[in-house]
Amino acid sequence: MTKKPAIVCLSFILLLFNTLSYSQNKDSLMIRQIFDQALTSHLAYTQLRNLCKNIGPRLTGSGQAAVGIEYVHKLLKTTGCDSIYNLPVMVRNWERGEKETASMTSSILGTNDLHICALGGSIATPSAGIQGQIIMVDSLSQLKKLGRQAIEGHIVFFNRHMDPRFIRTFNAYGRAADQRTLGASEAAKYGAIGVIIRSLTLADNLYPHTGVLRYDTAITRIPAVAIATRDADLLSQWLKKDPSLRVSYTTHCSENQPVPSFNVVGEIKGSLYPDQVILVGGHIDSWDLGEGAQDDGIGCMQSIEALRILLSLGYKPNYTIRCVIFIDEEIGQAGGRAYAAWSLATKQKHRIAIELDAGGLLPLGFGMSDKSPLFEAFQKWQPLMLPYGLYNFQKGGGGVDIGFLSGQNVPLMSLLTDSQRYFDYHHSGLDVFENVNEREMQLGSAAVSSIIYLLDR
Amino acid sequence: MTKKPAIVCLSFILLLFNTLSYSQNKDSLMIRQIFDQALTSHLAYTQLRNLCKNIGPRLTGSGQAAVGIEYVHKLLKTTGCDSIYNLPVMVRNWERGEKETASMTSSILGTNDLHICALGGSIATPSAGIQGQIIMVDSLSQLKKLGRQAIEGHIVFFNRHMDPRFIRTFNAYGRAADQRTLGASEAAKYGAIGVIIRSLTLADNLYPHTGVLRYDTAITRIPAVAIATRDADLLSQWLKKDPSLRVSYTTHCSENQPVPSFNVVGEIKGSLYPDQVILVGGHIDSWDLGEGAQDDGIGCMQSIEALRILLSLGYKPNYTIRCVIFIDEEIGQAGGRAYAAWSLATKQKHRIAIELDAGGLLPLGFGMSDKSPLFEAFQKWQPLMLPYGLYNFQKGGGGVDIGFLSGQNVPLMSLLTDSQRYFDYHHSGLDVFENVNEREMQLGSAAVSSIIYLLDR
Repeated sequence: MTKKPAIVCLSFILLLFNTLSYSQNKDSLMIRQIFDQALTSHLAYTQLRNLCKNIGPRLTGSGQAAVGIEYVHKLLKTTGCDSIYNLPVMVRNWERGEKETASMTSSILGTNDLHICALGGSIATPSAGIQGQIIMVDSLSQLKKLGRQAIEGHIVFFNRHMDPRFIRTFNAYGRAADQRTLGASEAAKYGAIGVIIRSLTLADNLYPHTGVLRYDTAITRIPAVAIATRDADLLSQWLKKDPSLRVSYTTHCSENQPVPSFNVVGEIKGSLYPDQVILVGGHIDSWDLGEGAQDDGIGCMQSIEALRILLSLGYKPNYTIRCVIFIDEEIGQAGGRAYAAWSLATKQKHRIAIELDAGGLLPLGFGMSDKSPLFEAFQKWQPLMLPYGLYNFQKGGGGVDIGFLSGQNVPLMSLLTDSQRYFDYHHSGLDVFENVNEREMQLGSAAVSSIIYLLDR
Repeated sequence: MTKKPAIVCLSFILLLFNTLSYSQNKDSLMIRQIFDQALTSHLAYTQLRNLCKNIGPRLTGSGQAAVGIEYVHKLLKTTGCDSIYNLPVMVRNWERGEKETASMTSSILGTNDLHICALGGSIATPSAGIQGQIIMVDSLSQLKKLGRQAIEGHIVFFNRHMDPRFIRTFNAYGRAADQRTLGASEAAKYGAIGVIIRSLTLADNLYPHTGVLRYDTAITRIPAVAIATRDADLLSQWLKKDPSLRVSYTTHCSENQPVPSFNVVGEIKGSLYPDQVILVGGHIDSWDLGEGAQDDGIGCMQSIEALRILLSLGYKPNYTIRCVIFIDEEIGQAGGRAYAAWSLATKQKHRIAIELDAGGLLPLGFGMSDKSPLFEAFQKWQPLMLPYGLYNFQKGGGGVDIGFLSGQNVPLMSLLTDSQRYFDYHHSGLDVFENVNEREMQLGSAAVSSIIYLLDR
């Protein structure tokens, strides 16, 4: 696109009026300063690069997660928090081990390697791997209909696609995720020897997407893997031509003893209501295939950056602003549970809790539980944020970690971000620093900093 | 992010209600069908891949542009247009020639290669290149202040940054683009032997971004290049330490005789008002460094896809829907001018003209000139489009190609897309197919198809 000066001028003046006008309004001015800070500083993006590139993926309970925890502790300190402490928590220690391998073999079509990865929490296959015929299903209920006679001794292939018609891709994910979380136990009920799950992504490529499974304690555990969508499609095509083809796969994962770990807390004490807390946070643990950039290094870095921006502008909060960097969101949610238990035991008072765990893509607004006493005020803030593209001030908010606080009547909030690309990266080898755009990240940091400012009044 | 089923359920039901509810409203139903079509078809994305990968970049007047024109002609045919024709136009034929080279040499700091590219329309350097001391400025007015004494015999380095504080990056671009379009002629006035322009991007990397310059006919032409932002920063740092450092560069571009080319037009004849036209289009020409994916292969493919979707749903338009694929937007705008001249000569009646030339990133709404008789109705369509994230129904719309129609009182419109990443790719080697997300592209196709449907009532 080339712009002719005359055309540029008109639209420029119109938009300049919207985006750079300095109104008399104090809140508008403060929010403008917050965005200017965020968009002219490269600090948070550099910190995310360090986290992703120098520390790397941070599987809960791993050594790298421990280094990540140390790193955010240090960042909270340099940011200027007046109180930083760790909340201890025991976490699971599941490891992938060596890279997994898989292939399909058909007497008609030949042999083809498949891109797979073990699901988080899965047991390993025997060291020689497992091999079997494939029963392809698209739901847990279809599995039930087929029954033991069809399934026993075979490998179940859950091939339900995420539905591309959902505009918000989290809804498509929510609809497809049961095959990953429950598929192994449900298939084992009918005597399956293993399960293969279509990766939960709308992208067509060779990257498998992991994620946690939950074994039913009463059922024999069977090894479960995710398969890349392109290979899932190929497997499905081959099965049409040769239903008797066999798949073999080998995984090396192991569950070690739980290890001690921490949630990290950094606070700026409130001057008027020091015992009332505005909580903002993300989770430092990640999956091991990528670098935990979008999920959720960015949520951690944005939480810290939101505080840094307020402090750099000389802002002194009325309420205590508390950044909580949770551990173990991906596997056991022990961090979220531990924080909630500590909150209950020590009678913490939360004005609100905000979780950043939907990726650092373009921010579009916020969600807040409408039971919150702040909800009415919240909806009136939209005009203040609209110049920054934050148009959506909707009912309903939360996150996995802060979700455990809902029993304590803590109002929950989340930052709403563009979800179109999120599942391209989610839980896969593509969740790396290179797939983070600095401006998108920093618009999110500014959005969060601004909403904390508004919540603090 | 892991979602617990309970949490998913609540937000899922709330959002499902918004996004998938089938209201009694006919328009809502039609728009839902349009989005379902767009999000479940891979056709347009595949066509964009063909255009980018098999045809490649399409500099106006080039052989590849001619192949691109043939390709869209074929696509319009298979889409089911009932009338397809070419509008002839002569276009410039500027070529880059061999890859450019540049370096800076300092007696203190050594030598360093620089990543540059000739600006579109520039003359070449002599075959041995040019070499000179650098005068760094950040505006045309600073150049004027320095005057001939400072500038004569030197190379002017325009290093004005795009301002990252603008939320809509097109505004930052508009503010910085004069150095590229006018810098060479302004510097030549004061006896400069060449100009180097900081690339117009907010990204920090080694990709130079080209774009057209305009030589003042009264002034001696001097060779102009763009420099990658990271090298611009390095050059600026070196200059602080050694103001007498010298830069040399060699370019091989040439301006050949104008060649015949075409705008391509495809129509679906209106059943009620066949002589009144809803125009939608993009431009097929591109810069030569990438593949012309975002700028503007995607605008062409989305225009054609918007028609395909309506036809595939059995829709019979009231007005004539005309897809115009313009040529020569980037260099001489001959295509836009020729269309406007033809429109005037043949007394075309345009109900509206929509240009898609802001990239295929997340669509956020539409702009329409408020002088349009449709503007009042337009603003009432927002609730119909909001479930698809199209919240912004703003005053002011247009585009370079359709801009030439404004003298004929044609109401102008544009699709508004997320601009955060647009200038990362724009006019550089990064404007390739890999940097297009299929969902973002198809949400745009559906948005355009829907607005055509609404405009057609």
